[in-house]
Amino acid sequence: MNKKIYILDSTLRDGAQGQGISFSLEDKIKICKCLDDLGIDFIEAGNPGSNPKDLELFKSMKSIKLNHAKLVAFGSTRRAGTKAEDDKNLKDLLDAGVETIVIFGKSWDFQVKDILKTTLEENLAMIYDSIKFLVDKGKKVIFDSEHFFDGFKSNEGYALETLKIAKEAGAEVVVLCDTNGGTLPSEISKIVSKTNKVLGDNLGIHCHNDMGMAVANSIMAVEQGATHIQGTFIGIGERCGNANLSTILPTLICKYDYELNARKSLDKLTKISRYISEISNITLSDDTPYVGASAFAHKGGMHIDAVAKDPKSYEHIKPELVGNKRRFLVSEVSGKSTIWKEVQKIFPNIKKDSEEVKVITDKLKELEFDGYQFEGAEGTVELVMRKVIGKYEPFFKLNHFKIIGEQPSLKGTFSSTALINITVDGKTEITAAEGDGPVNALDKALRKALEVFYPQLRSVRLVDYKVRVLDSESNTGAKVRVLIESTDGVEKWSNVGVSKDIIEASWIALVDSIEYKLIKDIERKVRTYF
Amino acid sequence: MNKKIYILDSTLRDGAQGQGISFSLEDKIKICKCLDDLGIDFIEAGNPGSNPKDLELFKSMKSIKLNHAKLVAFGSTRRAGTKAEDDKNLKDLLDAGVETIVIFGKSWDFQVKDILKTTLEENLAMIYDSIKFLVDKGKKVIFDSEHFFDGFKSNEGYALETLKIAKEAGAEVVVLCDTNGGTLPSEISKIVSKTNKVLGDNLGIHCHNDMGMAVANSIMAVEQGATHIQGTFIGIGERCGNANLSTILPTLICKYDYELNARKSLDKLTKISRYISEISNITLSDDTPYVGASAFAHKGGMHIDAVAKDPKSYEHIKPELVGNKRRFLVSEVSGKSTIWKEVQKIFPNIKKDSEEVKVITDKLKELEFDGYQFEGAEGTVELVMRKVIGKYEPFFKLNHFKIIGEQPSLKGTFSSTALINITVDGKTEITAAEGDGPVNALDKALRKALEVFYPQLRSVRLVDYKVRVLDSESNTGAKVRVLIESTDGVEKWSNVGVSKDIIEASWIALVDSIEYKLIKDIERKVRTYF
Repeated sequence: MNKKIYILDSTLRDGAQGQGISFSLEDKIKICKCLDDLGIDFIEAGNPGSNPKDLELFKSMKSIKLNHAKLVAFGSTRRAGTKAEDDKNLKDLLDAGVETIVIFGKSWDFQVKDILKTTLEENLAMIYDSIKFLVDKGKKVIFDSEHFFDGFKSNEGYALETLKIAKEAGAEVVVLCDTNGGTLPSEISKIVSKTNKVLGDNLGIHCHNDMGMAVANSIMAVEQGATHIQGTFIGIGERCGNANLSTILPTLICKYDYELNARKSLDKLTKISRYISEISNITLSDDTPYVGASAFAHKGGMHIDAVAKDPKSYEHIKPELVGNKRRFLVSEVSGKSTIWKEVQKIFPNIKKDSEEVKVITDKLKELEFDGYQFEGAEGTVELVMRKVIGKYEPFFKLNHFKIIGEQPSLKGTFSSTALINITVDGKTEITAAEGDGPVNALDKALRKALEVFYPQLRSVRLVDYKVRVLDSESNTGAKVRVLIESTDGVEKWSNVGVSKDIIEASWIALVDSIEYKLIKDIERKVRTYF
Repeated sequence: MNKKIYILDSTLRDGAQGQGISFSLEDKIKICKCLDDLGIDFIEAGNPGSNPKDLELFKSMKSIKLNHAKLVAFGSTRRAGTKAEDDKNLKDLLDAGVETIVIFGKSWDFQVKDILKTTLEENLAMIYDSIKFLVDKGKKVIFDSEHFFDGFKSNEGYALETLKIAKEAGAEVVVLCDTNGGTLPSEISKIVSKTNKVLGDNLGIHCHNDMGMAVANSIMAVEQGATHIQGTFIGIGERCGNANLSTILPTLICKYDYELNARKSLDKLTKISRYISEISNITLSDDTPYVGASAFAHKGGMHIDAVAKDPKSYEHIKPELVGNKRRFLVSEVSGKSTIWKEVQKIFPNIKKDSEEVKVITDKLKELEFDGYQFEGAEGTVELVMRKVIGKYEPFFKLNHFKIIGEQPSLKGTFSSTALINITVDGKTEITAAEGDGPVNALDKALRKALEVFYPQLRSVRLVDYKVRVLDSESNTGAKVRVLIESTDGVEKWSNVGVSKDIIEASWIALVDSIEYKLIKDIERKVRTYF
């Protein structure tokens, strides 16, 4: 039977140490459910000793049933020169009321002497007493050996001593931590294999990403005998973060035949990783391995042609395995064939070498040259195609709009107001709206005016609004690119606008987003009628 | 003597394949200068064959002197069934007019048969002829062996054959590419060492990050004999990107004693990495190893105390080595002492436990809660301190401003105009200005009015203007944070403003930046008088 690997997720504990990360109780509960759904074995839910708020979570989770995952509490060994039974931190750990507890202790002699300012002997006693105390209370204990690799390099004998004593005291797993993230993969490999020979099984690994090697180091450790991996989702954590489980899981599952409980739910990885980054209020970088929006996106014309012939030519795994999608990006370097594929989705009869495809390609390149970017702005791409092919007519005529920003305004504070005058089928509508900023005011006014003629627009709302200043060197006069994402509850689409003026750029994207919606509705009708 | 390692940067070529990356000619020239400044050996500046725009760069760079870096051109082998001397792509490579050329060819039998649709023999001939053709023209050739590792696993003998023939043809370096980024560090290690035994020296490595291992894989290859590393800055590139040189360089330099030309300029790494990400229009993630804003940031109270005792307790290298800074993040634990250090820079006599430090700490936390971010906004931090301590008086009174954005305007197109009315020492100034967008118009009008009273403001100009939409879910009504950087030619300072209204947020930052300048001038005078 294949080696079984256990995963401990520390998103809620070590991850919460990351800059700008702070979870509400509700956030934490949502994350626990996600991790359980994904088949994670252990969820390190907090440090009740150092952060009393973490106790709330343990309480609330008692009433929530998890399918497989076990909640674990994290805390340190007893303080120097005290008794375990008098140690408040150890008591708090018991109060968490969970079956398994992670205890961290020092394995680096320098840390013991210069930071804890105690003796090497007392540190061993602290590890032994703390674990023994919890084991006697019927708890299962995982020992996190802090700075193990630095300790091993500084004083191999002592580092190993701290692990041995932890096992004597009853620790089920001892976890080798590269706390400072400064250990090289080849060192990890050597040290884990040596340690495995001395200590035997049930070794764990906990890596940090200060050299960008936390994922590789975790994998190297597994190859050398580790069976328990600690990490966080999308790699959040102090400094450069922890080993990223959204990268480690698919690698272990797709490249090895280890037994992992998450194997059966791997196709949920992308959805859950993106959801956790939403909750963590982090923009998941598009180039994130396996789960990023670009992880299987192809831009170079040559690559696109090859992938069309056989995906394995430029993809190391099938995107579906992790629940992600393949994308062909429309861009300067992407050739006619990419754009033709897009055109075909709407106009199946147009040939690759037709004049239209050429004109569309040139038009898109010209717009890109002006600062447009069509990756993730499919709505605008479609409108450009329709305009070229002649399958487009404007849904309204703008006669005039005026935006007034005033400080102080009538109400004393700053205010933005927009007036708009449009014509639809010869009927003119004039209206106005106040908003949070000029763009919001203009957005409101335009919808207000259009809803008179197109009531279906009531269901449309913006879900995202991004501003990117291009060539920022040229100060407040720089070009800006505005990307907006809209939804009508059924479909989601994105549109882009570029101008030296943020209001004009936003106006272009707003109008596009509304016209795109109206075109889609007509098509849906047509489909129903015939 | 220690092994010498050569670095080839492909930010402008492979990096440009990344989603959302498109460089202007000016951008490319700036990047070349940065890379040269950092001591990079080779700059892969483009693919003149597939992208004619790349020839512009080679032309423009002829008139620009680089200290050390060599510009290289990139292109493919001749097409199947053609003569090298008739191959347009190879001609374009010669037109680039550089001494060294990178040629890529296929080393994976599957790619040759199923994608190129030619024979294994013809592929070998394509590699040989193309390299020989360039060598005969007096060029130095680097051979990129595409998909080498997949090829080695599929047909070891043939993969090695493609390298041997490249060397026979005169290639100086053969580069082993993990094109799909699916090779594990232990596989890289084995395959490179085997290849090294067969091929001898002058092996290179080119890794992609689809498993988050491009950096580790590059380092493993060097340990097994590779002496030439290809990567991109901050790791941009197709799909999940390329090996990140901003991570590889410091690791090779700080953890090994290899000879690298960049060793002497390592302390420029952070500045240059951040500058390149600015040019690439990418937000450099705070947790980026070595160069990110949080790479040496400490949040946990226990960590902060330990680092205060000895940095090596939670830092694997000294931040100064890479030109980065240690930071203690504002949090319940670290807050006061961190902020006190800042206060002391301006008001040395204020004690740590004074009421002022407490009030400033609370005020900054309150502002951060509202969405302010003070990293790189020292100007604003200083003004907050002065306002609390009472060392601040406004330099002007705003009576009223009004911004009008109009479409169509008198001139037909869209226009933004700002009117402003301010008072200084009882004298009132009313003026107006037109600009590119509402913020630019307001900026111009405000300066125009203030210069009447403070002529020294004529020397001030904005060098950067950044807009970041916070909680973008709440669409065009979302909060925005505006960061502006100003200079008077001597000093540079940054100010930040947050509001639901981009104009108000920009106004706050603009006023701050001007007041900061005026305060500094007074201090300079004071210093000269006494």
